[in-house]
Amino acid sequence: MRLLTLRTQTGTGNGGSTNTVAVRQDGDTLTEINGFTDVGALLKDPAWETIAKAANGATHPAEGADLDAVVPAPGKIICVGHNYRNHIKEMGREVPEYPTLFAKYAESLIGPNDDLALPQESDTVDWEAELAVVIGKTGRRIAEADAKDHIAGYAVLNDVSMRDYQFRTIQWLQGKTWEKSTPFGPALVTQDEFSAGPLMTSAVDGEIQQQTPTSDLVFTPEFLVSYISTIITLNPGDVIATGTPGGVGHAQDPKRYLQEGQLLVTTIEGLGQLNNRVVKEA
Amino acid sequence: MRLLTLRTQTGTGNGGSTNTVAVRQDGDTLTEINGFTDVGALLKDPAWETIAKAANGATHPAEGADLDAVVPAPGKIICVGHNYRNHIKEMGREVPEYPTLFAKYAESLIGPNDDLALPQESDTVDWEAELAVVIGKTGRRIAEADAKDHIAGYAVLNDVSMRDYQFRTIQWLQGKTWEKSTPFGPALVTQDEFSAGPLMTSAVDGEIQQQTPTSDLVFTPEFLVSYISTIITLNPGDVIATGTPGGVGHAQDPKRYLQEGQLLVTTIEGLGQLNNRVVKEA
Repeated sequence: MRLLTLRTQTGTGNGGSTNTVAVRQDGDTLTEINGFTDVGALLKDPAWETIAKAANGATHPAEGADLDAVVPAPGKIICVGHNYRNHIKEMGREVPEYPTLFAKYAESLIGPNDDLALPQESDTVDWEAELAVVIGKTGRRIAEADAKDHIAGYAVLNDVSMRDYQFRTIQWLQGKTWEKSTPFGPALVTQDEFSAGPLMTSAVDGEIQQQTPTSDLVFTPEFLVSYISTIITLNPGDVIATGTPGGVGHAQDPKRYLQEGQLLVTTIEGLGQLNNRVVKEA
Repeated sequence: MRLLTLRTQTGTGNGGSTNTVAVRQDGDTLTEINGFTDVGALLKDPAWETIAKAANGATHPAEGADLDAVVPAPGKIICVGHNYRNHIKEMGREVPEYPTLFAKYAESLIGPNDDLALPQESDTVDWEAELAVVIGKTGRRIAEADAKDHIAGYAVLNDVSMRDYQFRTIQWLQGKTWEKSTPFGPALVTQDEFSAGPLMTSAVDGEIQQQTPTSDLVFTPEFLVSYISTIITLNPGDVIATGTPGGVGHAQDPKRYLQEGQLLVTTIEGLGQLNNRVVKEA
């Protein structure tokens, strides 16, 4: 099942300037899941899967739909660094014993086809294609064997990073959480229909930058759910961005960064595509 | 004005097992601010200050009140590292050019008199007394001169840190965000009644560990509001934990950490006190 967050004037509203509604995608059709403003709100209902399957609200064409970030306001976004061997190598590090965790705030998120804000303060804006895990069930100290039950599904995320700010200090947060810089979507694909494996690609103006199978993760989604939930409760709608493979612009020679007007395309086979135009912030 | 979040069966509810309500403290009396489940919900109303001043709901004695974290679920908790010269020195670092920022998630927060959870996975649980800034008005790229308008007020926070997890990798998050480990409160004291300066103290079983004036901050609250809001919008209820001074247990010789049964007391003159018993997690 594919679940998305649609911006629509007929949606039930999220308090912003554009209303949103959770929808189920079947082929070319999006069907509203009545009563849920977005996929995050839907996941908070323990019966979300049954409700989503049975939904028969108003329909919209999938083609040209104005989509929000699939979960627009996760309670937590937990990012993983150093999780693909080829990216660990290009950044000059060792394969780690423990996952490296850092955060991103919800205000960073944008929809799968939204403009990506290039801030006036940074000219070292880089791409990081990632497989995102979305939590569907509350848990603490979840055993790795039980982790699947806590994963609602998967989506594509690009952990766009302002490298100058990221490396201003020894903590990366300030380079990882710029306003409206992290595309996330297009859909949550439920875990019965996807698991880590398929190829992930990022491309800038059609030129491939990163291309690695998501099966190359050092720490799997199930391990990460178990590890993180040892520390803190994972709740429905929480997001784990599982890390990026080799091919980031900062590790290229010469270094390359996103420029105004470029199109950043991020794809995971079976999940979908993010298409984000890089636009200088006003 | 002093604003607190009171746990009460007569509160308007936050969906948890105990209802909560925002209250104003006048001397020994807490007065309910009707319609607001907690101080975070109150701050989201642009008229919060007027509403809080005029509130005349049910009253409760302040003595023995069961208090929640003053803002129980901030949209963002942004923590600052290396922000007191004496702590920078004890950790063997240089006075920084930029603030070091990292995150903490809301599930870490506990009330000012709650038990502090000592997890079975860590035996290096350390104290970090901090002055917390609470945002009262939305803003992006806030000039330092305007920052005061965006600060609702101040509170006490102890950024309790699991040092083993903190230093497992180069990113501190996993040592900084353990469930129910961060006392926060007791009150938000509005910024017209407080500014950084008064003495901050942490003590374990009555023995003073940290004692430094909050005026010794390298980066002031106003600077931090400006710096962080360059990166991302600050919203009402967001919290900036401004960093800890010297005297953490990890920097002592021999190193000292919190033990089961100890009482951690964190005080900032003019703001109040956190009294947290260290209890082994079940």
